[in-house]
Amino acid sequence: MLHMPARSTWVWLVDAALAEDLGPGDATSLAVLPEGLTGSARIEARTSLVVAGLAVAQEVFERCGTAFEALAADGDLLDPASVLAEVSGEALGILSAERTALNFLQRLSGIATLTHAYCDAIRGTRAEIIDTRKTTPGWRQLEKYAVRCGGGGNHRMGLFDGILIKDNHIAAVGSIGSAVKLARTGGARGLKVRVEVESVEAAREAIDAGADALLVDNQPPRTISEIVALAGGRLRIEASGGVTLESVAEIARTGVDEISVGALTHSAPAADIALEWNPISSG
Amino acid sequence: MLHMPARSTWVWLVDAALAEDLGPGDATSLAVLPEGLTGSARIEARTSLVVAGLAVAQEVFERCGTAFEALAADGDLLDPASVLAEVSGEALGILSAERTALNFLQRLSGIATLTHAYCDAIRGTRAEIIDTRKTTPGWRQLEKYAVRCGGGGNHRMGLFDGILIKDNHIAAVGSIGSAVKLARTGGARGLKVRVEVESVEAAREAIDAGADALLVDNQPPRTISEIVALAGGRLRIEASGGVTLESVAEIARTGVDEISVGALTHSAPAADIALEWNPISSG
Amino acid sequence: MLHMPARSTWVWLVDAALAEDLGPGDATSLAVLPEGLTGSARIEARTSLVVAGLAVAQEVFERCGTAFEALAADGDLLDPASVLAEVSGEALGILSAERTALNFLQRLSGIATLTHAYCDAIRGTRAEIIDTRKTTPGWRQLEKYAVRCGGGGNHRMGLFDGILIKDNHIAAVGSIGSAVKLARTGGARGLKVRVEVESVEAAREAIDAGADALLVDNQPPRTISEIVALAGGRLRIEASGGVTLESVAEIARTGVDEISVGALTHSAPAADIALEWNPISSG
Amino acid sequence: MLHMPARSTWVWLVDAALAEDLGPGDATSLAVLPEGLTGSARIEARTSLVVAGLAVAQEVFERCGTAFEALAADGDLLDPASVLAEVSGEALGILSAERTALNFLQRLSGIATLTHAYCDAIRGTRAEIIDTRKTTPGWRQLEKYAVRCGGGGNHRMGLFDGILIKDNHIAAVGSIGSAVKLARTGGARGLKVRVEVESVEAAREAIDAGADALLVDNQPPRTISEIVALAGGRLRIEASGGVTLESVAEIARTGVDEISVGALTHSAPAADIALEWNPISSG
Amino acid sequence: MLHMPARSTWVWLVDAALAEDLGPGDATSLAVLPEGLTGSARIEARTSLVVAGLAVAQEVFERCGTAFEALAADGDLLDPASVLAEVSGEALGILSAERTALNFLQRLSGIATLTHAYCDAIRGTRAEIIDTRKTTPGWRQLEKYAVRCGGGGNHRMGLFDGILIKDNHIAAVGSIGSAVKLARTGGARGLKVRVEVESVEAAREAIDAGADALLVDNQPPRTISEIVALAGGRLRIEASGGVTLESVAEIARTGVDEISVGALTHSAPAADIALEWNPISSG
Amino acid sequence: MLHMPARSTWVWLVDAALAEDLGPGDATSLAVLPEGLTGSARIEARTSLVVAGLAVAQEVFERCGTAFEALAADGDLLDPASVLAEVSGEALGILSAERTALNFLQRLSGIATLTHAYCDAIRGTRAEIIDTRKTTPGWRQLEKYAVRCGGGGNHRMGLFDGILIKDNHIAAVGSIGSAVKLARTGGARGLKVRVEVESVEAAREAIDAGADALLVDNQPPRTISEIVALAGGRLRIEASGGVTLESVAEIARTGVDEISVGALTHSAPAADIALEWNPISSG
Repeated sequence: MLHMPARSTWVWLVDAALAEDLGPGDATSLAVLPEGLTGSARIEARTSLVVAGLAVAQEVFERCGTAFEALAADGDLLDPASVLAEVSGEALGILSAERTALNFLQRLSGIATLTHAYCDAIRGTRAEIIDTRKTTPGWRQLEKYAVRCGGGGNHRMGLFDGILIKDNHIAAVGSIGSAVKLARTGGARGLKVRVEVESVEAAREAIDAGADALLVDNQPPRTISEIVALAGGRLRIEASGGVTLESVAEIARTGVDEISVGALTHSAPAADIALEWNPISSG
Repeated sequence: MLHMPARSTWVWLVDAALAEDLGPGDATSLAVLPEGLTGSARIEARTSLVVAGLAVAQEVFERCGTAFEALAADGDLLDPASVLAEVSGEALGILSAERTALNFLQRLSGIATLTHAYCDAIRGTRAEIIDTRKTTPGWRQLEKYAVRCGGGGNHRMGLFDGILIKDNHIAAVGSIGSAVKLARTGGARGLKVRVEVESVEAAREAIDAGADALLVDNQPPRTISEIVALAGGRLRIEASGGVTLESVAEIARTGVDEISVGALTHSAPAADIALEWNPISSG
Repeated sequence: MLHMPARSTWVWLVDAALAEDLGPGDATSLAVLPEGLTGSARIEARTSLVVAGLAVAQEVFERCGTAFEALAADGDLLDPASVLAEVSGEALGILSAERTALNFLQRLSGIATLTHAYCDAIRGTRAEIIDTRKTTPGWRQLEKYAVRCGGGGNHRMGLFDGILIKDNHIAAVGSIGSAVKLARTGGARGLKVRVEVESVEAAREAIDAGADALLVDNQPPRTISEIVALAGGRLRIEASGGVTLESVAEIARTGVDEISVGALTHSAPAADIALEWNPISSG
Repeated sequence: MLHMPARSTWVWLVDAALAEDLGPGDATSLAVLPEGLTGSARIEARTSLVVAGLAVAQEVFERCGTAFEALAADGDLLDPASVLAEVSGEALGILSAERTALNFLQRLSGIATLTHAYCDAIRGTRAEIIDTRKTTPGWRQLEKYAVRCGGGGNHRMGLFDGILIKDNHIAAVGSIGSAVKLARTGGARGLKVRVEVESVEAAREAIDAGADALLVDNQPPRTISEIVALAGGRLRIEASGGVTLESVAEIARTGVDEISVGALTHSAPAADIALEWNPISSG
Repeated sequence: MLHMPARSTWVWLVDAALAEDLGPGDATSLAVLPEGLTGSARIEARTSLVVAGLAVAQEVFERCGTAFEALAADGDLLDPASVLAEVSGEALGILSAERTALNFLQRLSGIATLTHAYCDAIRGTRAEIIDTRKTTPGWRQLEKYAVRCGGGGNHRMGLFDGILIKDNHIAAVGSIGSAVKLARTGGARGLKVRVEVESVEAAREAIDAGADALLVDNQPPRTISEIVALAGGRLRIEASGGVTLESVAEIARTGVDEISVGALTHSAPAADIALEWNPISSG
Repeated sequence: MLHMPARSTWVWLVDAALAEDLGPGDATSLAVLPEGLTGSARIEARTSLVVAGLAVAQEVFERCGTAFEALAADGDLLDPASVLAEVSGEALGILSAERTALNFLQRLSGIATLTHAYCDAIRGTRAEIIDTRKTTPGWRQLEKYAVRCGGGGNHRMGLFDGILIKDNHIAAVGSIGSAVKLARTGGARGLKVRVEVESVEAAREAIDAGADALLVDNQPPRTISEIVALAGGRLRIEASGGVTLESVAEIARTGVDEISVGALTHSAPAADIALEWNPISSG
């Protein structure tokens, strides 16, 4: 289910983006274009990619008074030269929206496409690719949505909707057991308790303390496998740290439930998407 | 001169980033950490990188009540394991700020580091590496600043502070000459007129029409060289399109003044930067 | 641990409150008071009450240029005539802040005081008094904090940080089992699954499906007791519906873990708190 | 005339309320409900009450994409089980709006209902029940509107649209006469001068000084009667202080023009209003 | 008493003004000035004028990191070449603030200076010069303050803090008497009732109906005198319409209490104020 | 081409203007007018004027629920008594919008009318009348648009979209030549370099250094003529300083390209525009 994030979580980013690009206006087009000139154009994929962000692009174009018709859907895997959408209206509007809309589409589709590649790499295992909190500041909702478009899952949205006990929390209270106990009683009533562990011993201690899930950080596949065996399906195991498209399959074969990959959002290259005009005549 | 963008152009992004990560608060730390527990940590480079964004990271930590001391400066080229900054204060504050601050630093330093690599690749030529409008929506000022930190230059900020005549403008009025004339007389009085050309003939026509600069898009080095010769130093020539770390040197050797690279901002991988805690005791 | 909500979650309410009360200014004081007249005053409890909201009152006074010194702390149970704080500065400032600051203090202390009464009524049982989402729109963080000041606990903050399966969710997918399964797999990874039940049979079905907690709504003590027995301590049981200061003790004696009370926030009468001036002379 | 306050004075409260309840989304419904599932429901009074706030509830539902049809009007006195409105649309939208809309309706109808009770208690006298500035911060326009829905009148909106001379103003300038004179000449040209008095002597002094109205605070009925006689209908007399549903009739019989009651807005219990779903099937 | 309007009523105008002038930055100074160059300058009156707006100018300069020392006070009548203030700091900051600060000072001092001229013209009469609602949108608080700086008084702030019955109100309810009665009973409790009249008959009707004040619009001095006589000092009389520096004295001699002049705010020419740099050297 | 500025650049000024005038509502009309009373009115020119700002006036009326039909267009030169627009709807809405809408129209049409007079005065010369940065803070986009409506041209929008080298820049780097060189290489790539000069020698130095345009400030016609001759049409010459309706023709006859006039925006008197109601009856 590809629920788009609520408009209020990203519409201000559209405002900011248009403001920073347009400022007092498109100086070239205002000077050169005949008033009222209209046109139309296609938004095309230049490589194979998974689409994400069509509704945001639509918002950008509509703000500029341009009609937008989507010809693909978020989550679609497209061949090169596929048309994502058509736009039409005043040329001044299309040119004002073009770069901003593409900047959104290219970034979000880039994330979806990279996520799709990771998912492909582990097909046949029980593991799921999920994201992290390593998102572009201001873009969390959109980027986590792009991950879903690519077939991935979402980790917690932020520090508020999931409990993750790390080294420092444990050091602060003296033991994994104490930390888990505090989290279960003092924590928000609706949140599960996940513990980050870096050894089989720590995993055992967390399980005994009643953790709901474990995050095994930066460990070799052998250690992950042991922890998976120890958990015996009673609680979910997530692996993270140094995951690449080359290494992900081996990690998946340890039997973990989730593999979290920061690069999905912090290092995805832009998808190559361009706006191609239908001919404009000076008539 | 590394002028940081005015605080008002990015501080709202800090607000948004903290809001999306913290929501009603860090559930884990609120539940687990003893009230008033303090600590300190170092922000470290894990690979060689060029730093950008320390003032933004400082803003994030200070919003969370944490003291921040920079030990490097934006634009510095750091070795792996170098310390960028030290932070200290309530552990709750440091943990609330950590991810958001790193997300800013990693993105901006990633852009600065990639820009630096491009600049390195053309050292000895007269060309300059410059950015494009292909920036992350909402981040234009910060990303263009990161490009400067990496040694690059900035193209226009947006559609408002430079005139760039493209295909459609020309098609709309019938000829390069007409478009340039309209731009010179009807345009904003303080803006130069740059024309995008894809052939020597178009370049000649633009020069004759009185263009102040040319953008040669997606042409082989031979064509670029011819246009450089044609211009004879009387107007600036920019090359763009399909520039990579491998191809950039050859383009630079054509004698162009500027090479614009969209990947600097749309596809730079995050720099690897981490926060390392000094020991916390449960005492 | 009485963590005050982050300032950003309520400071805009202070802005709005001062704006709606002051508008273009305090017409009476601007006309009558000699410019520069100073004074001081005490904020006093007129009945026994539990204090909540001193930091908000301080914000209001400081906005108006008035010094504020707290003489009590949030969570304190005060006798009538106790002094909560002293304020001093320009009389114009004190009078501008007075009503707005008291409106905050009276409402929040009213909630803390009512919560305290409920907690008192069940002392000696294992149950805890918790709040609901029936808060004053715009005030959720502050009101949930006031509940903590009164000794109560907080239910989820909103629809986003806890899963609560109700009638309609069950009707939509056909059975409690299906709903719980969807929530466990399709839901946010960090959230526990709580199920609202209105019978022992429904409770059994939810437990079998793997629910993390149950909310028993609007049932007689006998039914609650049966469900508590059925759960056998393996999952938390919350009771809600029609709870009053008279009935709460009987409900608590069923052995439930939590009793949620909407009236804490939607129907608490204001605490009686007033500002008493130290003498002003016309000298 | 029941003029609803301008939308701009309360719509931001709807924004805030939805944001604090929804955050990144309704975790339960997003996980459990089939995409596109639709439904409908009725908003019902569970006790007798006076309605207030239907337009606000409508705004909340429409923000969530839900159709809203009012079946009653603000100011109506309803019997238990009456239907205030019907809503229909996507189940996800209805569930997202439900609690927030009810929180508005219950609070505003609670105020209207309590105001109605006070008005009933003095029927047959010449007095009018009016509100005070003791409103919930951020809610002044809405709460004063709810008072009007219940049949009451409004005192001044804030410190800016009426002059009320109190003890401290008088102390600051030495006498009632001086304060009234300053208010009449130095004050805003369009504002009447009301003086708070606590004795017959003070009332006489204020009348002689040219006050436009008197506020008799915290005095026994006998004193109020004397002041009413003294005023002889030439200026309006308001009584305030310690007014309850039991005592209000006696105060009204003194012949005062207005009785102001802080409890209307600071201590009204929520009206009992619920949303009842029409059957949803899993078909 | 020259109470400056609360900062919150005008500080957003400073934000907007700096944003519209600076955009992404002062292109000239960023390119040309050596980083860190400092300087100082004087703000001087070039003609005789009454000062208004120094606090706003200070805000502008301080936003740009420039120190500001006022050498005059709002309300002062200055000779040509007087120094209003001195500023010092980074040259980049001073140049960024200069135009915006002067734009505020010139406009507000222009209004104060024109007001002063009107006040001068009627010296020796009992009349007072007051402003109208014909202010620059967004500037009402500042412009009404500038009128006070020039020695004038303020009419109501807006439609909300004074009642003014005009032709259309009277036409709508059938008579002056009905309109006044509705305003006295149905209107906000704290507001006086002023009636606009254009004849002696209408004035008599308004007085009989209990109006608190009259506005005589666009009538010859003789008619104004008759109405002043009719009122006999029992209610205030305001004259308006077509008032110029030439005609104002004759109107004042009719004995009116107030003369309102729209031109004070809608047509005051800017005062001539400039920033003069102390020498900068390239050393 | 009269491109209206983007709505987002001025719509907040409409918000602010309505808020400051309406506050909690039009007290008179709310008290006096029968609910639902409707009416219509004409907006009329009382003198000859050039119209500017109809779209802003329309926005104001539509915010207040009033229909607005324009009967003229921005830029039209109207005779006295011409009708600019008709409005109709609830009387309460028309009265709420009236003053704010007129305040916008009168100011903008005043600027357009004054600009038109300057343009008239130089008809037959090659010079163009342009504006300055001496605009009302917050109003730059609207006021520069009004200048265009009057037939004038626009100078740069702000400090960001044009380079203007002044005394202090030159003093800071030692010579005109150095300043121009820095501006050409260090400055924003899309901006032309204009130099302010006060003598023929300075003009020569700037031309030799490669300036794109000159601003001749505060010089007699003879000096301007010499500089025009010196430039020989190779770069644009602007004259400024002390320009009046009387002196502008002589300046234009020097052959300058542009004459900039601060008074267009800082000292234009309001155009006289009024709203005339069609009869309202009390029926």
